[in-house]
Amino acid sequence: MAVIRRLPRYYRYLADLLRVDIKRISSKELSERMGITASQIRQDLNCFGGFGQQGYGYNVETLYKEIGKILGVERRFTTIIIGAGNMGNALANYENFKKRGFDLIGIFDISPNRVGQYINGIEIMHMDRLEEFMKTHVVDIAILTVPSHATAEVAEKVAELGVKGIWNFSPQDLKLSHNVVIENVHLSDGLAVLGYRIKEMEEQEQKKKDKQN
Amino acid sequence: MAVIRRLPRYYRYLADLLRVDIKRISSKELSERMGITASQIRQDLNCFGGFGQQGYGYNVETLYKEIGKILGVERRFTTIIIGAGNMGNALANYENFKKRGFDLIGIFDISPNRVGQYINGIEIMHMDRLEEFMKTHVVDIAILTVPSHATAEVAEKVAELGVKGIWNFSPQDLKLSHNVVIENVHLSDGLAVLGYRIKEMEEQEQKKKDKQN
Repeated sequence: MAVIRRLPRYYRYLADLLRVDIKRISSKELSERMGITASQIRQDLNCFGGFGQQGYGYNVETLYKEIGKILGVERRFTTIIIGAGNMGNALANYENFKKRGFDLIGIFDISPNRVGQYINGIEIMHMDRLEEFMKTHVVDIAILTVPSHATAEVAEKVAELGVKGIWNFSPQDLKLSHNVVIENVHLSDGLAVLGYRIKEMEEQEQKKKDKQN
Repeated sequence: MAVIRRLPRYYRYLADLLRVDIKRISSKELSERMGITASQIRQDLNCFGGFGQQGYGYNVETLYKEIGKILGVERRFTTIIIGAGNMGNALANYENFKKRGFDLIGIFDISPNRVGQYINGIEIMHMDRLEEFMKTHVVDIAILTVPSHATAEVAEKVAELGVKGIWNFSPQDLKLSHNVVIENVHLSDGLAVLGYRIKEMEEQEQKKKDKQN
């Protein structure tokens, strides 16, 4: 699973290489660009059949396509956003999702100020219309950007109505009995890692100073 | 580094346990709750001195405090947000940041419609005032939620003005020559992992069906 979490990153880096017409790359070079050790890269890519060749490195296009297949990028997913606040708006406008195979087909909210407004050409519908919508559309993924206290209830509802996956932006981890894949986003985890790395940098700088004195 | 990225998650789970007054936990139980293998948990926590005891498990409070120390949660960081669009707004309103030690002290934008407005009690200032602001305030972290094309320039500017870390929400990875810690957020990576897991679930369900026939 840890490898899977790194695959989207490999995929992005390989896309960047293709864009500047780089045709092959060694694990060492890829390592320097991505900030992952070369041995980790070899180990990761070996998990998926090892597309590298000793002395040659990796064929960028082949690797890009293979990782794309594993990730299922040729498959398109339909998504709805529930909660049209700031985060919902930001995600609805996120240009990269469509490129990566995720099509937004509906936005829902309960606020009278929001219902009837449009985001990126899509009308915000009242939650009352969710059930009818999901009976007439295939919805693969529900993106939940509702307030924390409402998340569990909304999640149960979309699970019952048949979504396959939930992308949860509330700080509380979701757990459901249904057969639904859940990805919990924890933005503050990223900030905590940043804080840790700043603290580490400061400590190293302090050590350098101490040595000079 | 991979361990470090898991620490905020351990920290959150342990906080949840403390909240319901659970005093000790085995790596097996923790494993079931977190969806990480027990051996991974033992290996991770051993990296930091191994606070577990055979047959007893981990003391939740001790472990929580130790991980907190490693993450530097007692340290507070000052942050500014540059770019007061939807994502900037969402982050400015994110209740968890303050709890986790990150204090928002300034918000900047260039749009005349936004400058002078308030988010969460903080006035949105024009970018023209950034330099003066950073000369009179210690800013540890700049959170960049500006449009992609503007990100590199703004990042260079805040780095020159002395931030220690940048949290970058633009889809393009940032690289700077300065001594600044950068965390690039790639929201679509999370969505790609969700897509992969849905595909995997579907394939397993298909296999089950095939067996039944």
